[in-house]
Amino acid sequence: MSKKPEAASFVTEITPRSQDFSQWYLDVVRRAELADYSPVKGCMVIRPYGYAIWELIQQTLDARIKATGHVNAYFPLFIPESLLTKEAEHVEGFAPQVAYVTHGGGEELQEKLVVRPTSEAIFGTMYAKWIQSWRDLPILINQWANVVRWEKVTRPFLRTTEFLWQEGHTAHETEAEAEEETLKILDLYADVCRSVLAVPVVKGRKSESEKFAGALRTYSIEALMGDGRALQAATSHNLGQNFAKAFDITFQARDKSVQHIWGTSWGITTRLVGAVIMVHGDDSGLILPPLIAPYQVVIIPIGRENWRETVLPRAQEIQKELADAGIRVTLDERDERPGWKFSEWELRGVPLRLEIGPKDIEKSQVLIARRDTREKIGIPMAGLAARVAELLSDIQRSLIDRAVAFRDEHTQRVDNYEAFKEMLEGRPGFVIAPWCGDNECEAQIKADTQATIRNMPLDAPKPQSACVRCGKPATSEAWFAKSY
Amino acid sequence: MSKKPEAASFVTEITPRSQDFSQWYLDVVRRAELADYSPVKGCMVIRPYGYAIWELIQQTLDARIKATGHVNAYFPLFIPESLLTKEAEHVEGFAPQVAYVTHGGGEELQEKLVVRPTSEAIFGTMYAKWIQSWRDLPILINQWANVVRWEKVTRPFLRTTEFLWQEGHTAHETEAEAEEETLKILDLYADVCRSVLAVPVVKGRKSESEKFAGALRTYSIEALMGDGRALQAATSHNLGQNFAKAFDITFQARDKSVQHIWGTSWGITTRLVGAVIMVHGDDSGLILPPLIAPYQVVIIPIGRENWRETVLPRAQEIQKELADAGIRVTLDERDERPGWKFSEWELRGVPLRLEIGPKDIEKSQVLIARRDTREKIGIPMAGLAARVAELLSDIQRSLIDRAVAFRDEHTQRVDNYEAFKEMLEGRPGFVIAPWCGDNECEAQIKADTQATIRNMPLDAPKPQSACVRCGKPATSEAWFAKSY
Repeated sequence: MSKKPEAASFVTEITPRSQDFSQWYLDVVRRAELADYSPVKGCMVIRPYGYAIWELIQQTLDARIKATGHVNAYFPLFIPESLLTKEAEHVEGFAPQVAYVTHGGGEELQEKLVVRPTSEAIFGTMYAKWIQSWRDLPILINQWANVVRWEKVTRPFLRTTEFLWQEGHTAHETEAEAEEETLKILDLYADVCRSVLAVPVVKGRKSESEKFAGALRTYSIEALMGDGRALQAATSHNLGQNFAKAFDITFQARDKSVQHIWGTSWGITTRLVGAVIMVHGDDSGLILPPLIAPYQVVIIPIGRENWRETVLPRAQEIQKELADAGIRVTLDERDERPGWKFSEWELRGVPLRLEIGPKDIEKSQVLIARRDTREKIGIPMAGLAARVAELLSDIQRSLIDRAVAFRDEHTQRVDNYEAFKEMLEGRPGFVIAPWCGDNECEAQIKADTQATIRNMPLDAPKPQSACVRCGKPATSEAWFAKSY
Repeated sequence: MSKKPEAASFVTEITPRSQDFSQWYLDVVRRAELADYSPVKGCMVIRPYGYAIWELIQQTLDARIKATGHVNAYFPLFIPESLLTKEAEHVEGFAPQVAYVTHGGGEELQEKLVVRPTSEAIFGTMYAKWIQSWRDLPILINQWANVVRWEKVTRPFLRTTEFLWQEGHTAHETEAEAEEETLKILDLYADVCRSVLAVPVVKGRKSESEKFAGALRTYSIEALMGDGRALQAATSHNLGQNFAKAFDITFQARDKSVQHIWGTSWGITTRLVGAVIMVHGDDSGLILPPLIAPYQVVIIPIGRENWRETVLPRAQEIQKELADAGIRVTLDERDERPGWKFSEWELRGVPLRLEIGPKDIEKSQVLIARRDTREKIGIPMAGLAARVAELLSDIQRSLIDRAVAFRDEHTQRVDNYEAFKEMLEGRPGFVIAPWCGDNECEAQIKADTQATIRNMPLDAPKPQSACVRCGKPATSEAWFAKSY
């Protein structure tokens, strides 16, 4: 790790969260070296520290996607325009956002190619070729890929023209199996967010106006950011037979009849890194849940000028001891003041800082500072790795508890439109309200409040009350919020 | 694993290698379900079985790239045309092969975007921003990405318009460090090919005419395929200060002077999967080195109609026992004849087939067939996992030995042009010959023989003889071959 010395004075230059959340976010992204702007409009460079977080998220997701019977593959980046247009709603939804390749190899192309905004069209085309019989089903394929959606307003991780994601595309014999798959993946996503990212989410169904272009039903998980705005953290779509019909994906059924397959698709993106920043961070910068922290512990040697002789050897031993125990650990031996290093690693959200100086060595102990609570604890060197592992578990637990508490404090329930509007004006967060299910009513609520229906939780009982806005009978309990 | 029943009769339909190597290759790719043609010209779909091989190659490469101090990141897919043109040789080399995005978000773009054919331009732009001082060096970044190079003639894995690769881009203080890095990576690539893919390679420097567009020196590893043609398996480039000057990547040196960094770049691609097929395969299909085999063992239950009751439970126990020992194992319990299953898994190159029937159970043994030698061995069930692991090691070793022997048998040394031409006409393979170092002489050899200089091995002594074609003093010993 090398660092330009002139950067030292900038370490603390982060706009306070309470002053300007949006600027705070951008400052953290830039100063913690998670991402940088590129010369390509709307595209970011994910820098090594940000990418290492994404890799840890990927590893856990990939293992879980495979453990549920899915396999990975890779489909082409380019989609001939004629394929994208086969499913009417799909093309209507995506056409305004696509990038077109018109020239290749020095010539104008006969047919324009779309840079994939998502891959239903190309998976559908291949599935039509591969699937013959019910024996070929289900097909459960996932891919890790980059996609491009032209965006007018972009923000690192949250909304960029190019982003990274995984996209699953499956084909099933029956509608029930497709629905089961859609919800199984929704659960998987919710569990990864909760248990790995320490981000609590609300699982539910999207309204008709917010569903994926071409889907029968779209489900999402929604998280609440530190400023009280919601973020759609992932979606899972039951495609019904829409793409099967558009791409002629048929199979011979058990009863010998020819039928269309039932499809699903689902994805989760680099946007998750943005969610982690906005759910856990504070005025000093990032706070990373240990499970996705590139470094779970940073060791900082303390001491007079001769610390390289007096302290460093012991610090290196501790580094080895922790690494051997499977803990991701770094040792900061740069020639900077310890205080500067403290700020730097706080900014980068490392869960535990381990300080060691000559006196600690004499007492056979170290000083450990928690990033989440800022608590400082003296810990004996004997049994250090086990104690560090315990602290990391405790931080992971404490972060999810804190995030759940924040979310609950910022979730309110109303059935009166004046109160509803006031809440969305005043204290930001989720507002749960009964809703009639009508598109126009939803649009009017958005016009009045800038809030949208994030989703309608699956386990909520059908409300007995009237729609919060129009007074007609409510069909669902909806979670409203202003969102990213 | 489901499989359409009508496919059964096609299992053996592979063109014999000796009859038409090129068609044999395409048959294996298609029938083993490694890849499929897509509706996008020149782009393939990497199917799950082919992608699983790539993932295993990726994992080992990623671990080794990280172990040598590199970190991963992600840079944008699109490169503004003006950036690509900054390095003169670079644009000259790549311009004919690029795809252009001209429209995005419903509008014509003010500046065309190039879909990256490689990423020196965008890394260079960011490095100019990030690097200030010698303390920031070296920067050692790698990315896993897709790239696009418009190709007229394509072939799955070997040459496709879009392909997957890793590309490393590094910046150093001195020329010596850049050269050391370039060669360190060349060694890393050669070692992965040899010890993981069981593909022996020749390490050497490319001639001026074959070097990377914009590089100071290009090194490559070259492998010999089963038909005696060479395949460039990876390249590593010392970029000198060419990109540093084009992109103004400077740093304040230890002596306070401002200097340009010294760069390297290096990449290895999905083409490796093609190399594995062509080095190891035979008339029955693929032969996979155990280290990159998605399944190292396939268990096939044998027996009368009631095998599901009599044999399957024991087969499942064995599957669990092997999986618990860290062996990648699958159990084929489809309703097909064992003979059909044998052919199917031979085609897919699974290193070991484990047969188990009622008599084996009585005798507490299994029958194991090696894919590489077709040897069949009875093995007691007691200690099975350890014995399987030994056999897998033995196959891995035997495949590299076989490939080295084949390569050596097909490598000849000459210093006379008539003999040189005859050899390249007759028995395909590498021909080692002294060469004068002149571009035009090299071009004439290519015109006469269709063979090119693959590379000039690093450790070869400078030849004392005359150039094989022109008779001028030779400067290097060059390895010639017809190539992919």
